[in-house]
Amino acid sequence: MEIKIMKNILDRNQNRANEVRELLAQKKVLMVNIISSPGAGKTTLLEHTCEALGARFRIGVIEGDITTDRDAQRLKKYNIPIVVINTEGGCHLDSHSISKVLGSFDLGNLDVLFVENVGNLICPSQFDLGETFKLAVVSTAEGDDKPGKYPMLFREARAVLLNKIDLIPYTNFSFENFSQDLKRINANVPLFQISCTKGDGMNGWYEWIGGQIEKR
Amino acid sequence: MEIKIMKNILDRNQNRANEVRELLAQKKVLMVNIISSPGAGKTTLLEHTCEALGARFRIGVIEGDITTDRDAQRLKKYNIPIVVINTEGGCHLDSHSISKVLGSFDLGNLDVLFVENVGNLICPSQFDLGETFKLAVVSTAEGDDKPGKYPMLFREARAVLLNKIDLIPYTNFSFENFSQDLKRINANVPLFQISCTKGDGMNGWYEWIGGQIEKR
Repeated sequence: MEIKIMKNILDRNQNRANEVRELLAQKKVLMVNIISSPGAGKTTLLEHTCEALGARFRIGVIEGDITTDRDAQRLKKYNIPIVVINTEGGCHLDSHSISKVLGSFDLGNLDVLFVENVGNLICPSQFDLGETFKLAVVSTAEGDDKPGKYPMLFREARAVLLNKIDLIPYTNFSFENFSQDLKRINANVPLFQISCTKGDGMNGWYEWIGGQIEKR
Repeated sequence: MEIKIMKNILDRNQNRANEVRELLAQKKVLMVNIISSPGAGKTTLLEHTCEALGARFRIGVIEGDITTDRDAQRLKKYNIPIVVINTEGGCHLDSHSISKVLGSFDLGNLDVLFVENVGNLICPSQFDLGETFKLAVVSTAEGDDKPGKYPMLFREARAVLLNKIDLIPYTNFSFENFSQDLKRINANVPLFQISCTKGDGMNGWYEWIGGQIEKR
């Protein structure tokens, strides 16, 4: 019985996601669904990305959070359109909540809409929001075994950002273990080794995401 | 409609959890439901706890994982009873899965049963497993804002382990921010600052959990 209920919810989510995807394609807006564990660095990534690409592209952000608007507050200084969705305990965003808030954006004046999903490596990967693609962010401090243990997100991601590489010397993280695991799950996915706070590897990310926005 | 379905699932979960709790009380087994984000250090905590307390107490472990038995493999060397529950994509353990595997343990020969829940700071805190109490583990590398942003677990936890304190010098983690957030949510919860890999603060944890097992 539970499976059937889940299937209905997923079907309804998929239908709405398809509508969202169609609308964004019409408006020529790239939507990036950013997924990670809590504290992997999604908001810091957005801060630096707004800083680096804000003059080149028209950026909007949807901030998914269980409660509080703290992440949105951190992005206010970039003077971009931001909408917060508080899930009030919910463990992921769904296409209905995205669809509802799209009306708050002037889509004709946007190039890219970043969606910062709720911090959760599991549930968000199961709900299509109508995004152009999913982006996986994972911190080296989480250990090198995450792709193998939480394969769903890594299988679906269009790119993987391995963040906090500056912490590797202080942990037992093995890049070899991590990349072997990842290759087994998603052989050709682009992998960026970055440190949002220290700046390492960020140019490669800016170049790649800039290319994705341009070819939307 | 979704709320009603969710309530039914939670009701059924609660009934089974009550049965589990009653059985464990009869058998005098303490059950600790360990919850954290992916990679906060639950398995490493269990490794060191088995090492330190294995001679004093009879320990059993239930390993909740989406897929793989990697965490269980890491604990094999302690020669303790371990059962793996693979949720096959599921984002939390529930009381039904716990109830089913309890028969695999000789409960009359156990003092404590540690349950390592699926790595997820959200969903597991909403499902009572019949545990004696929940234990929250959080890594400094996740940032100092986690109690405020993910309050459910921190509200319910009997104790909080702040792990990876050895990484603080290399991050922007503020202990003051963290503890203020936590106090607002759960004023008197015991907080242990530890590093499982470096050993800092572990004796305080062993003493506290030893006391909990003894007074079960």
